[in-house]
Amino acid sequence: MATEQQPSDADADSDGPHADAPDVYHDLLDRYRRVSYLNDAGMLLSWDQQVMMPKGGTPARSKQQSALSSVQHEKLTADAVGDLLDDLDGADLTAQQSAVVREVRREYEREAAVPGDLVERISEETSNALPVWEQAREESEWEQFAPQVETLLDLKRQYAEHIDPDADPYAVLFADYEPCLDLEVADRVLTRLREELVPVIDAIADSDVTLAEDAFDDEYDPDTQETVAREALDALGYPADHGRLDRSTHPFSTGTQFDARVTTRFDPQNPVDALSSTIHEFGHATYTLGLRRDEYGTPLGDHRGLSVHESQSRLWENHVGRSAAWWEQFLPTFAEQFPSAADLSPRDAYEAANQVYDDNLIRVEADELTYHMHIVLRYEIEQDLVHGDLDVDEVPQAWDDKMEEYLGIQPETDAEGCLQDIHWSHGSFGYFPTYSLGSVMAAQLYAAAEDDIDDLDGKVRDGNFEPLHDWLTENVHRHGARYETNDLMEEATGEAFTADYFLDYVREKYGALYDL
Amino acid sequence: MATEQQPSDADADSDGPHADAPDVYHDLLDRYRRVSYLNDAGMLLSWDQQVMMPKGGTPARSKQQSALSSVQHEKLTADAVGDLLDDLDGADLTAQQSAVVREVRREYEREAAVPGDLVERISEETSNALPVWEQAREESEWEQFAPQVETLLDLKRQYAEHIDPDADPYAVLFADYEPCLDLEVADRVLTRLREELVPVIDAIADSDVTLAEDAFDDEYDPDTQETVAREALDALGYPADHGRLDRSTHPFSTGTQFDARVTTRFDPQNPVDALSSTIHEFGHATYTLGLRRDEYGTPLGDHRGLSVHESQSRLWENHVGRSAAWWEQFLPTFAEQFPSAADLSPRDAYEAANQVYDDNLIRVEADELTYHMHIVLRYEIEQDLVHGDLDVDEVPQAWDDKMEEYLGIQPETDAEGCLQDIHWSHGSFGYFPTYSLGSVMAAQLYAAAEDDIDDLDGKVRDGNFEPLHDWLTENVHRHGARYETNDLMEEATGEAFTADYFLDYVREKYGALYDL
Repeated sequence: MATEQQPSDADADSDGPHADAPDVYHDLLDRYRRVSYLNDAGMLLSWDQQVMMPKGGTPARSKQQSALSSVQHEKLTADAVGDLLDDLDGADLTAQQSAVVREVRREYEREAAVPGDLVERISEETSNALPVWEQAREESEWEQFAPQVETLLDLKRQYAEHIDPDADPYAVLFADYEPCLDLEVADRVLTRLREELVPVIDAIADSDVTLAEDAFDDEYDPDTQETVAREALDALGYPADHGRLDRSTHPFSTGTQFDARVTTRFDPQNPVDALSSTIHEFGHATYTLGLRRDEYGTPLGDHRGLSVHESQSRLWENHVGRSAAWWEQFLPTFAEQFPSAADLSPRDAYEAANQVYDDNLIRVEADELTYHMHIVLRYEIEQDLVHGDLDVDEVPQAWDDKMEEYLGIQPETDAEGCLQDIHWSHGSFGYFPTYSLGSVMAAQLYAAAEDDIDDLDGKVRDGNFEPLHDWLTENVHRHGARYETNDLMEEATGEAFTADYFLDYVREKYGALYDL
Repeated sequence: MATEQQPSDADADSDGPHADAPDVYHDLLDRYRRVSYLNDAGMLLSWDQQVMMPKGGTPARSKQQSALSSVQHEKLTADAVGDLLDDLDGADLTAQQSAVVREVRREYEREAAVPGDLVERISEETSNALPVWEQAREESEWEQFAPQVETLLDLKRQYAEHIDPDADPYAVLFADYEPCLDLEVADRVLTRLREELVPVIDAIADSDVTLAEDAFDDEYDPDTQETVAREALDALGYPADHGRLDRSTHPFSTGTQFDARVTTRFDPQNPVDALSSTIHEFGHATYTLGLRRDEYGTPLGDHRGLSVHESQSRLWENHVGRSAAWWEQFLPTFAEQFPSAADLSPRDAYEAANQVYDDNLIRVEADELTYHMHIVLRYEIEQDLVHGDLDVDEVPQAWDDKMEEYLGIQPETDAEGCLQDIHWSHGSFGYFPTYSLGSVMAAQLYAAAEDDIDDLDGKVRDGNFEPLHDWLTENVHRHGARYETNDLMEEATGEAFTADYFLDYVREKYGALYDL
């Protein structure tokens, strides 16, 4: 389906997408590429810092990173870049070339709008905020962290004001993470999740069904878990010569279409969680690896923002890695490493991986369903904070009230509540929604893939992931940032971005699991 | 001795070495620091490429490195840097500040002298040359590699001409690696090595003494060797929070005073070699870690060129790691991991580690003595090449003749002869001498340390390396690039740079070993 609706890529056939473009276009692209390469160098430094660097290396690494950032800023916002963009106004460009200019312009305009000293102050204050947050969380006292949040909110409001004084500042901040999906669209999706998931969650709480929640109740040696994780990555088709798996405190993925790495961590009590995390990061890496290699450094070879990125990780994590078909094919591999699992049925494993806990307070430990209530709650709170409709010291109360409303539970401490996430200490207001948007997109994309690929479920069961890979590469990855988010979804699925598929998916899956 | 002769560092006491300097000085230093930080980012990228990066990452990494280099070049050679240097001409500066300006000026002048397109061509041609050298070495055919050497020589001659049209081009190239020691001084030292070591080597060849060359004739598991290497690093005082040990094809060390890493490789047949390599790289890392942290990014916190760097690695590798005292303290640790070594005496291990093989053709496998003949040979050949006194296709013959003359042996193939080293494929003509200069400096420094430290040999035997560390930090590391090479040697040892100590050391050591 989707492939037939692909626009003609005739302009890519002759001498690449940039053929016959005016010289100013090539000048602009050369400058942009250089900024991209420097950006990727910075990402490697950050990977190293989180995975390899000895602790004592921090002071030097900070200097290196800040030198890199400042050079990137300088190169991206150079007057010459603005002049080239002006020269390209109304130029005769192909669709792909116009997309390139649109993306460069967007980045240039945002970066050039904000004064350097504000950027620096934000960077400084986030450096200060991190240890304060860590301390506050340890002592479970929001009051300790509140002044930092206040400061960062104030700076981020100024930041948004510089970029667009007429826009909703929250929408401006949101666009740092999801640059081309209107906040109204995001809002409609999140509102539907809130309205339509709460009844499902309530029904599950009332259900008499008990899933095999104790299926994995052994101790699982981390090194053996790593072997399992590597076997899962092999099975999924992660290429050893273009990636690597390491451990880090927080799992993440980073890199380029030539070298996309993943990290994970292992909890001896919870092997399913580590496996899910690994598959999640694999999804990110697979997106990165699917970007066009010949467009490395240009927007055509770059990802389409955090929501789409998250759609790729969630698709592999949830639609593949939490499916019954996955456990049918992977459980024997798991049991070979952990013989205590030999007695489990794939159904047991599937149930354990999809258990909805009605007392979970922690976002990163939530199931596919309640997860989104954690996001909606944060989205609403941070919007109120940015708009000045909520005082920073009212956050714990607002948090508890919303937890009660959406999930029927309340944290006993701030550590389990409003202090659990690192994001605000980074000054990241507007980031959380991309997690839910990604899940929703994943369901829409997976439904389209199921339409296009004959018996996709059977292929997952057989460990044949190539058709899905190919479908995602063809319909999502190879486009890079050519299309804006909504257009990409339409190109890939033939439909505008919608929560329908996600809601259908969870109703069907959890309806069957919990006999609703 | 040396510490008493330290110049007064009064200017470092108040507000650091840069206090009360004119504004232009601070402007210059800020610019220089940024270039240093970018340079260190590039070094991390290169470490990653050699140690961690999946093979497929190369195309992206090359782009990142070249973007970084070009930004560094641009920042270092900016007109503003030249103007600031002009403004500082005759400014009223302290001794340390003058040293800073001297170092920045040297780098600026070299970098600004060479046209960008020549730099780019050299970089391109070295990229081309590497696989050709690899292939030629594999097939042992110098003729295959010769055209690349010809091209690189030509480009490097042009390069030298741009930097100083009136100077000996080989001296100009040498200064890329050893920026502040006259080639005449280096030449005097190398000539003495040739004249005075050949008779010692001949005497050893004639000696009836047989050392315990079969002491380590077991198979040594690489993972266990790694454990041993880590224990050696621990024993020597390598700080875990400021470094790390990994494996790579060629051992190397890289990093900053906050994070100095080492790599090594393990040959199952030769555990002493791996251990020596590890200790060698430890010596480099220890120098880096001894640089002033508060001067990170300035010449006062940077190393004093490759000869001095090599003096630190050789000092630890040879004067410590190949000493009888070292084996007395470390053999039990080794034997704990490799029980077959339990029967060895420290004397056996010492002899095995210092065996002079009269049939060794390979530089990197040579002992402390014949090693320098390998260097002298290369030094003479590359000088003749650069001066046009030797045709590239005459290299194999010249090589064989000199091997015969200095070591009484001849390679049967080019692979064991003039194709064995990677350096020329990098376009590195003038690099080799720094290896010998480093060894010679190491002996002079170690002799001074022995004068200053009560019973240094006994301390090594006890595994008490702190006094030696402290001595080196005080007399060498903490100076960074404040002094030019000769002056640094005088500051540290009270004497000008001389080969006397090295020649005394080898005569005494090998005289005793071989009963000469």
